[in-house]
Amino acid sequence: MIYLDNSATTKPDPAVLQSFQQVSNDFFANPSSVHQFGAKAEQLLLKAKEQAAQLLGVQKEEIIFTSGGTEGNNIAIKGIALEHQQRGKHIITSQVEHPSVIEACKSLEKLGFEITYLPVDENGVVVVNDLVNSIRKDTILISIMHVNNEIGSIQPIKEIGEIAKAYPKLFFHVDYIQGIGKVPLDLEDSGIDLCTISGHKIHGLKGTGILYVKKRTILFPLFHGGNQEQSIRSGTENLAGAVTIVKALRLIKEHERKDISNLYNLQQQLRNELELTEGVEINTPNKAAPHILNFSVPGMKPEVIIHMLGEQDIFISTKSACSSKQLDESKVLLACGYSNDRAASALRISISYETTKNEIDTFLQALQKAIKQFKEVLE
Amino acid sequence: MIYLDNSATTKPDPAVLQSFQQVSNDFFANPSSVHQFGAKAEQLLLKAKEQAAQLLGVQKEEIIFTSGGTEGNNIAIKGIALEHQQRGKHIITSQVEHPSVIEACKSLEKLGFEITYLPVDENGVVVVNDLVNSIRKDTILISIMHVNNEIGSIQPIKEIGEIAKAYPKLFFHVDYIQGIGKVPLDLEDSGIDLCTISGHKIHGLKGTGILYVKKRTILFPLFHGGNQEQSIRSGTENLAGAVTIVKALRLIKEHERKDISNLYNLQQQLRNELELTEGVEINTPNKAAPHILNFSVPGMKPEVIIHMLGEQDIFISTKSACSSKQLDESKVLLACGYSNDRAASALRISISYETTKNEIDTFLQALQKAIKQFKEVLE
Repeated sequence: MIYLDNSATTKPDPAVLQSFQQVSNDFFANPSSVHQFGAKAEQLLLKAKEQAAQLLGVQKEEIIFTSGGTEGNNIAIKGIALEHQQRGKHIITSQVEHPSVIEACKSLEKLGFEITYLPVDENGVVVVNDLVNSIRKDTILISIMHVNNEIGSIQPIKEIGEIAKAYPKLFFHVDYIQGIGKVPLDLEDSGIDLCTISGHKIHGLKGTGILYVKKRTILFPLFHGGNQEQSIRSGTENLAGAVTIVKALRLIKEHERKDISNLYNLQQQLRNELELTEGVEINTPNKAAPHILNFSVPGMKPEVIIHMLGEQDIFISTKSACSSKQLDESKVLLACGYSNDRAASALRISISYETTKNEIDTFLQALQKAIKQFKEVLE
Repeated sequence: MIYLDNSATTKPDPAVLQSFQQVSNDFFANPSSVHQFGAKAEQLLLKAKEQAAQLLGVQKEEIIFTSGGTEGNNIAIKGIALEHQQRGKHIITSQVEHPSVIEACKSLEKLGFEITYLPVDENGVVVVNDLVNSIRKDTILISIMHVNNEIGSIQPIKEIGEIAKAYPKLFFHVDYIQGIGKVPLDLEDSGIDLCTISGHKIHGLKGTGILYVKKRTILFPLFHGGNQEQSIRSGTENLAGAVTIVKALRLIKEHERKDISNLYNLQQQLRNELELTEGVEINTPNKAAPHILNFSVPGMKPEVIIHMLGEQDIFISTKSACSSKQLDESKVLLACGYSNDRAASALRISISYETTKNEIDTFLQALQKAIKQFKEVLE
């Protein structure tokens, strides 16, 4: 199998699965139970939290374990909105966010909030000046993603963080789900108050996530109950899940330090060869995260190519998995100013640190053959 | 180890862990991905849903996979409240609910909702007449648990369901977390619109749950995003988790059919011997779920007994794990009309289908010795 859909989800690392098994078996007590077996589980949870904090350069009290990226984004956005609505009901986000951000914001419109969806330039990047101009007295939250999940463009998070610092009452949330382990981002002293990470995008497990919540950030919880996770996320802790996301985080950070040039090389190979392929137009900007390459084959239904490649055990995607069942144009590509035709024919290759040059070679040959076959049928 | 804290959490079944491993490895694709590998994952998800529906006697479209019981309870309560608040802002629940229900309701008070917390009789049971009298024109939701997590009392869910049927605009939610697999409950044609189940209470995994949502019940989602799970619970599906909770459900249902008398026998043994133990007062009513026995040793701090037993690798609990860190009286026992002293000295034994008579014998001896030692120190 040649799996090139790593932005949708990744294969769990064997070490991650082994940890899950071991913790589920040996530490199955409820960390909230007062007996010694519960205390043992609680200690492991605290240790996982300390390690996560160290890996992210933040403090352990700032780590909230969640069930994934969608939960993290929703806690951050709705949690700020519901808690701080007395101060204002205006939120700023962008047109190219993941559905878990866009739809969370839209849901707040029903509750009387007003949302500014910032446009992006042709590279899919928010213009900082637009953002500054859209800040109002009643703005309580800015939510901007780090790396775009469809085309890989990188937002100017550092600059936005500096702006956010100048407005101490305005919270800044970053969806870091695609960027983590591929494009470094400092959290400490960054102006970022909330930052979402998902486990299954970094060879961890589905159903695991981390939300960074800067100290003294008060949220209205989505889950109330036993006051676990600093009362931000009640519910019996998924200890095995927490241990595995920390392990996945450690492993991907190691890759980021050692193997990032491999990703850039493979991406460059893809770009070079696709640029020479007739009928292909590349959508990922030159400055982008190294693991995503998005391109269009105008006139071809992307699902057809995906299925032709799938027959050969090669898996790529169209748009993001989270909006892939809606068979229309990519909203991200439309926001970049591309034509409907181009936006409706986008394909996304997303590689991992496990991807080899051989696999890319095989994929490119299969793709070129598929495009040729498709065109012959049409002629 | 003698583990008698199964109402806090249970040991995952080895078959459950094996399934998790296998699905995580072989079906790691995102079920929303359009390629064939994603479709394979989606098929497995649908199959899991069908099996869950069959086991619960409902339809597959009515099964929503969640991250656990706290999420299920919060989706049900807040989802109804936020979606139907135009019709009314009154909710009825009881004083003996789990914190994930009580605190979810309290959080809604901050958003302008009014909550009736029904009292209970000396057995910890809601009086149906009280409930009927508390229904108002603006009541949109009744949330009553099936089996109480601290003392095992069983609520008259069937009768309440019949009442709910007479008010078609009023939703009825049942927290079935403690009852499932031990005390049967029909969902079909029951008047129940929403019903919460947790995986880790039935030898499944933490981070897994099911929320039954009767067709045509509209909820305001807590997680917005990619519209997974009928748009009620967005987020990449935790397929391995879903498969394991269905497996756990099947296994516990088998036990319920075949082995329920074992649980009742062990509970009776506990009751008989504890009734003869000096200083012990039993709090679990005669008519109760078979896996819980709650008792008090007034004058003794429960934590002390728990730790003395813990030294011998015997694990029992005080109150519920979700409120056990607050070292005060049990709100459930106070609601039953017990004294502060009795409510502050409660211990809970919760057994599983794996618990043996030998283990109960050993526990009882150790408990009696611990009480004796404690009293000698005090004298």
